[in-house]
Amino acid sequence: MRNILTDTLTATYRVRSSAADIAARATAIAVEQSVEMPVAPITHPFVRDTIIGRVEAIKDIGDGLFDVRITLSAATVGDDPGQLMNMLFGNSSIQDDLTLLDAELPPSLLAKFGGPRHGMAGLRENVGATGRALTASALKPQGLPAAELGALAGRLALGGLDYIKDDHGLAEQYYSPFHARVPAVQRAVLAARKSTGRATRYLPALSGTLETMRAQLAIARTEGVDCVLIAPMICGVSTFHALVTEHPDIAFITHPALAGASRIAPPLHFGKLFRLFGADGVVYPNYGGRFAYSPETCRDIGAAGKAPWGGLKTTIPIPAGGMTAERAPEMLAFYGADVMLLIGGGLLAAGADLTNVTARFVKAVEGYRYT
Amino acid sequence: MRNILTDTLTATYRVRSSAADIAARATAIAVEQSVEMPVAPITHPFVRDTIIGRVEAIKDIGDGLFDVRITLSAATVGDDPGQLMNMLFGNSSIQDDLTLLDAELPPSLLAKFGGPRHGMAGLRENVGATGRALTASALKPQGLPAAELGALAGRLALGGLDYIKDDHGLAEQYYSPFHARVPAVQRAVLAARKSTGRATRYLPALSGTLETMRAQLAIARTEGVDCVLIAPMICGVSTFHALVTEHPDIAFITHPALAGASRIAPPLHFGKLFRLFGADGVVYPNYGGRFAYSPETCRDIGAAGKAPWGGLKTTIPIPAGGMTAERAPEMLAFYGADVMLLIGGGLLAAGADLTNVTARFVKAVEGYRYT
Repeated sequence: MRNILTDTLTATYRVRSSAADIAARATAIAVEQSVEMPVAPITHPFVRDTIIGRVEAIKDIGDGLFDVRITLSAATVGDDPGQLMNMLFGNSSIQDDLTLLDAELPPSLLAKFGGPRHGMAGLRENVGATGRALTASALKPQGLPAAELGALAGRLALGGLDYIKDDHGLAEQYYSPFHARVPAVQRAVLAARKSTGRATRYLPALSGTLETMRAQLAIARTEGVDCVLIAPMICGVSTFHALVTEHPDIAFITHPALAGASRIAPPLHFGKLFRLFGADGVVYPNYGGRFAYSPETCRDIGAAGKAPWGGLKTTIPIPAGGMTAERAPEMLAFYGADVMLLIGGGLLAAGADLTNVTARFVKAVEGYRYT
Repeated sequence: MRNILTDTLTATYRVRSSAADIAARATAIAVEQSVEMPVAPITHPFVRDTIIGRVEAIKDIGDGLFDVRITLSAATVGDDPGQLMNMLFGNSSIQDDLTLLDAELPPSLLAKFGGPRHGMAGLRENVGATGRALTASALKPQGLPAAELGALAGRLALGGLDYIKDDHGLAEQYYSPFHARVPAVQRAVLAARKSTGRATRYLPALSGTLETMRAQLAIARTEGVDCVLIAPMICGVSTFHALVTEHPDIAFITHPALAGASRIAPPLHFGKLFRLFGADGVVYPNYGGRFAYSPETCRDIGAAGKAPWGGLKTTIPIPAGGMTAERAPEMLAFYGADVMLLIGGGLLAAGADLTNVTARFVKAVEGYRYT
């Protein structure tokens, strides 16, 4: 079960091609994603028999599209999440006739990366929520000084939210650097918890390198923070996973910034790969907001994150991006209770009435009857 | 000139839209890439006047496409390359109706990131090459043990190449881990240098996190290596730039793995952004090979890397991806002398005749008469 020398992984690409060309194109992809050179001069038996990618299946799905399944040696990945991305889509990402549709990984790689350390159950347990969807909002706009972000967080927390995250645009800007922002926000959230009796969590956004993120996590820990936001496609999946491994008691929610629209199918990207590397929850653009994902894509992201996969914990889907409190019932009907509803601007637009509007959103989610 | 509080940067997006909708769409992009919330409730003067993105220009370029120029505060970037990517294209990358076409940055950001430490001139000086194109090849296939990669490198170096890089797929696999591969290859290259009298350089590929890459660089330094290969879209641009800053005496060549086909226009991506963060040379897929870049795109990548830009050193273009020695004259006519011709599989296909075929390629490049 854990023999990395003989284990294989399978990548499925959706390729635009003519029927006449697809066999050759599939072979070219298998070569591109493995040895990346003409195969004729390769005489080394191990390379020839094990390392060169193999075309396993080609399926015509109509409209000039083919799903091509390619098998690669798991030994090519080593221990590195970045190298897994490289093997799945490194060079092929630069070609414009294919997308990465799915990946199947051997138990050895699932065990190596380990998936979420807390997962959906841990995020529920944090805030004592069972049998209902979780609620969340975001601290915006960037540009506010730390004290004002703190005040804003306090007003959101008084509304009874489960999670309040930094806007992903909050980084190390002079107007609200991490070391100023995190204490201000966390203390405001803790103060509000005394009023509400809830266990509202603050998720500060990490930014920079492994080294700067480690320093940020040290600050966060000092303040009692135990959940953070991270954008793996900006910092690199290797950095993301290293932090997950080093901080098993911290929950990690991923942000999709710089993930691209669809070169990697979103259910694979967020529901499988980010989960594999340790995402306890995955933020992604919901249908009908400011982004173009279809309802089907959104449903598939959620389903992928919750599907049984080796022994990995499940990841909670966090659809967002232009959502409003009014859409809560529709979203709950669509996703069921295993979802975190993240409404940022849609709550912040309430201005002076922020806490009341937030409380009504929380109440609507908690009172929703799942059918 | 260096006031990060008032400086601005400009991002240009190519947007597919109807003429009736483009004004609203442009405003939405400006909001998405800055405050990411409805602007009406924003009362803080600094945020309202400085942080909210502004639409500077909308240009109808025909065929339902518009070039939209948006100005953002440079203060939103802080000191972090990843945050610059986030501000330029973080959320918008997930929308499917636009690409990031160009970016203009204030002198303060150019000074902050500093660009190539060696640049084209340094890469020429390394190998004593003036007035001619540079030559390069790649060590493949992955799967070979370190000793065989070393033997291969020796045979390539005997052909007189300027640079020999690891295949970007060489990472920390058990069959040729960095600590075994780099001494084996570097020693073979140094031995060949004694025969050829040339200054052939080996560029090992870095992989993993900032921490693992630092350890790899320490090994490389021990062996006398002074040039490396790195894939910034896999490791993250922040990690890449941190290494450039920490190792000013090492030259960095970037690989485009996971860069995507065209969501970020390649001339901006490789010729400007990678250069800004410190790429001395940039590998990218040449036209007419295994990738779909047009001659115009390739010309623009090279031109962007060489264009005057603040005081930044220039970056040498390294077109690759299925090139052959036979195409050398055509490529030299196209790019001129300021190029590095990287031919991997096209040389390796020579099998037993590798050194002779390599020597002929080197001779063809060195003897080419530029008109």
